[in-house]
Amino acid sequence: MRERIGVGLMGLGVVAGQVARVLEEKAAVLQRQVGCPVELLKVKVAEADLSRPQAAELGSRITVDEDEFFNTPGLDIVVEAIGGERPALDYLKRALSSGRHVVTSNKEVVAKHAAELLKLAETNDVSLRCEASVGGGIPLLSPFQYDLVANDIRGIYAIINGTTNYILTCMAREELDFPTALKQAQALGYAEADPKNDIEGIDAAYKLAILASLAFKAEVKPDDIYSEGISRLGSCDFRYAEELGYAIKLLAIARQENGSIEVRVHPAFIDADSFLAKVDGVYNAVLAEGDLVEKVMFSGQGAGPLPTSSAVVADVAAAARDIYLGVGNRGIWVLNPGIKVKPMEEVETRYYFRMNIADESGVLAKVSTIFGQNGISIASAIQKETDNANRTAEIVIMTHSAKEKAVRRALEDLKGLDVVNEVNSLIRVEVD
Amino acid sequence: MRERIGVGLMGLGVVAGQVARVLEEKAAVLQRQVGCPVELLKVKVAEADLSRPQAAELGSRITVDEDEFFNTPGLDIVVEAIGGERPALDYLKRALSSGRHVVTSNKEVVAKHAAELLKLAETNDVSLRCEASVGGGIPLLSPFQYDLVANDIRGIYAIINGTTNYILTCMAREELDFPTALKQAQALGYAEADPKNDIEGIDAAYKLAILASLAFKAEVKPDDIYSEGISRLGSCDFRYAEELGYAIKLLAIARQENGSIEVRVHPAFIDADSFLAKVDGVYNAVLAEGDLVEKVMFSGQGAGPLPTSSAVVADVAAAARDIYLGVGNRGIWVLNPGIKVKPMEEVETRYYFRMNIADESGVLAKVSTIFGQNGISIASAIQKETDNANRTAEIVIMTHSAKEKAVRRALEDLKGLDVVNEVNSLIRVEVD
Repeated sequence: MRERIGVGLMGLGVVAGQVARVLEEKAAVLQRQVGCPVELLKVKVAEADLSRPQAAELGSRITVDEDEFFNTPGLDIVVEAIGGERPALDYLKRALSSGRHVVTSNKEVVAKHAAELLKLAETNDVSLRCEASVGGGIPLLSPFQYDLVANDIRGIYAIINGTTNYILTCMAREELDFPTALKQAQALGYAEADPKNDIEGIDAAYKLAILASLAFKAEVKPDDIYSEGISRLGSCDFRYAEELGYAIKLLAIARQENGSIEVRVHPAFIDADSFLAKVDGVYNAVLAEGDLVEKVMFSGQGAGPLPTSSAVVADVAAAARDIYLGVGNRGIWVLNPGIKVKPMEEVETRYYFRMNIADESGVLAKVSTIFGQNGISIASAIQKETDNANRTAEIVIMTHSAKEKAVRRALEDLKGLDVVNEVNSLIRVEVD
Repeated sequence: MRERIGVGLMGLGVVAGQVARVLEEKAAVLQRQVGCPVELLKVKVAEADLSRPQAAELGSRITVDEDEFFNTPGLDIVVEAIGGERPALDYLKRALSSGRHVVTSNKEVVAKHAAELLKLAETNDVSLRCEASVGGGIPLLSPFQYDLVANDIRGIYAIINGTTNYILTCMAREELDFPTALKQAQALGYAEADPKNDIEGIDAAYKLAILASLAFKAEVKPDDIYSEGISRLGSCDFRYAEELGYAIKLLAIARQENGSIEVRVHPAFIDADSFLAKVDGVYNAVLAEGDLVEKVMFSGQGAGPLPTSSAVVADVAAAARDIYLGVGNRGIWVLNPGIKVKPMEEVETRYYFRMNIADESGVLAKVSTIFGQNGISIASAIQKETDNANRTAEIVIMTHSAKEKAVRRALEDLKGLDVVNEVNSLIRVEVD
């Protein structure tokens, strides 16, 4: 039996700093859970981190030297909480190659390099764990690794970016336009000074790649994911959505059917009475559909140092328990070949169009003809507002289910019509 | 390395029958997850089950003989899905004592005998798993066993009985009285012919005992739990709740503070805007609060053969994986001594009183005096309806936080007042 398990931490930012504190404060709990003490032996930081008060508290356990870190005697588990692709990837590879179990909160590096990292973990008989990389402290990955393994996962519908959900909640409730809601989120610290990764759906795509890879046991990379942000939504879209019985959310969707999967991140109309429509502010939620379990939902705070440290330390406890029990690579994340990602053009869903048209007779007929020529069936067409001075009107068209490629062709055709001044919004409508 | 893992199933009711089907249908998935085939070797049934078509399909694997079942060569895992306390308890003890890992969906036997069963599991170096005993296919136990281990769990607020949640949803939405809503639930198969276990909160108390034992790592037995059902709720309570901004739910609550825990099941007023208030129909949900993770919520269908089989087979996969990796008792459920359950009299919460009083001057002063004498502070007192013919009126009083024992004394005192005709309802109001 082991007398202790040694942990090395990489990084000392808000998440890593909190992880260091929890490892010390919850030492007794961890020891009970694991069977022997779990000790933080070494912390690798960048030069800039040396001035942090916590660096001083950690004393001789702090190092800026990568070799010193990896050569620490008794180092069983490496926790990486630096973030970003480089140098994190190199560190993770070195940790796995040297036979250390790895715990990371880094969604970008896992999303982009899961296959390579899992291969290295297998070769070196250790495990890679990354529960904290998606949804902070909400257990979102372990359900797919353990609890739902008997299910064929049919679909995942997720709100996994708190920044955009906060902005959308403001736009819906306070009728703010996008730039004003973004400024409010930035003032409150919910959005970064450079908000691109969040508002353009890039962060959500990283997380969806990880979720979909686990759920479908297939390699899904960020580049496979169609991704569209929220910056082009207009405040009137929220008003019309509400009138029609919908809410607008940035959804990360993964669906599997007949050995082919679709993965996409975009704003979506969802039923105002659905669970996901009620997930507001910075909260995250994942709805999973399996053939046995039907629908299950997990929700909570998707970010922040405390919730994220909860997930990191749980992974450390699981890795330590495995080491204590003599288990190496647990095989909790297997990527099977042969599952294909469907091109976005082949995806079918319903659509909401908002467009500005000339307010004259016969326009609706011309617009409808274009939908018909592209094989798209219109569910409803409603004239919303008329500008008498400019002789223009705004119409909203809801379609029945149609293929993305037909919709894109229709969009081009509509832009070519002289009676259509602008197609302002095109938002997918999700039934589930 | 093992060449196969053998499973024995006890029972062939709706849940057990579905488990047998899933073990066959998902054999390839299980083999991939575990590392070797997982085979259903034997099914122990009662005489009455022999006439089921599924018994014929299972052929020579069916037996009514307990010894034959336990003597099956290669039997590594015993799955018990009979339900009820006896003979299930004897079977589980025999399975553990003979060194088999155990998976059970039986909330009653686990709630009443967890400590004894866990001790047997430890002695025989095997594990006891029971994810399916609470909340069907929703992963409700594994979060406390793995994902939230770094947290001090402060509270659990759970809707874990689908029958009562369906009835309460009908009473709220359709303004039905309790007997009518119960009949409707029975007609739809959501309530049993003898509904006592569900409507009196007994089923919820079993599940809460398991949840609280896991979350607080302390032995909590059904007898420790204060339990009150929903049969005395009046339809006007739902109307008043709505007017005051609340919903009424049968909540299972477990809270921990300063080494003492409170555990109780009763109808409760909860904020109409809260997550739990939106959990309707037969859906279940558990909200957990931890010091790191803050609030996380899990929800889904809490019953039914398909979701329950999802949890049972996940437990079988986990047990089989452990056997494959050479792990015996995993120590996922430890009961620490020294944590005490607080007597119900010491519990503090807010209260809603509905009472019928004489419609004459000075009555409110008399009623208020009784609250004051018992140290209970009134937050609001509203006269709702007046019956001019009988000169009676209905009033609703909401209190600030008060101890249960003070409220019980006040209730006795109120009953002794000649101007109080009846105290119709006394419902706790939960802030969280």
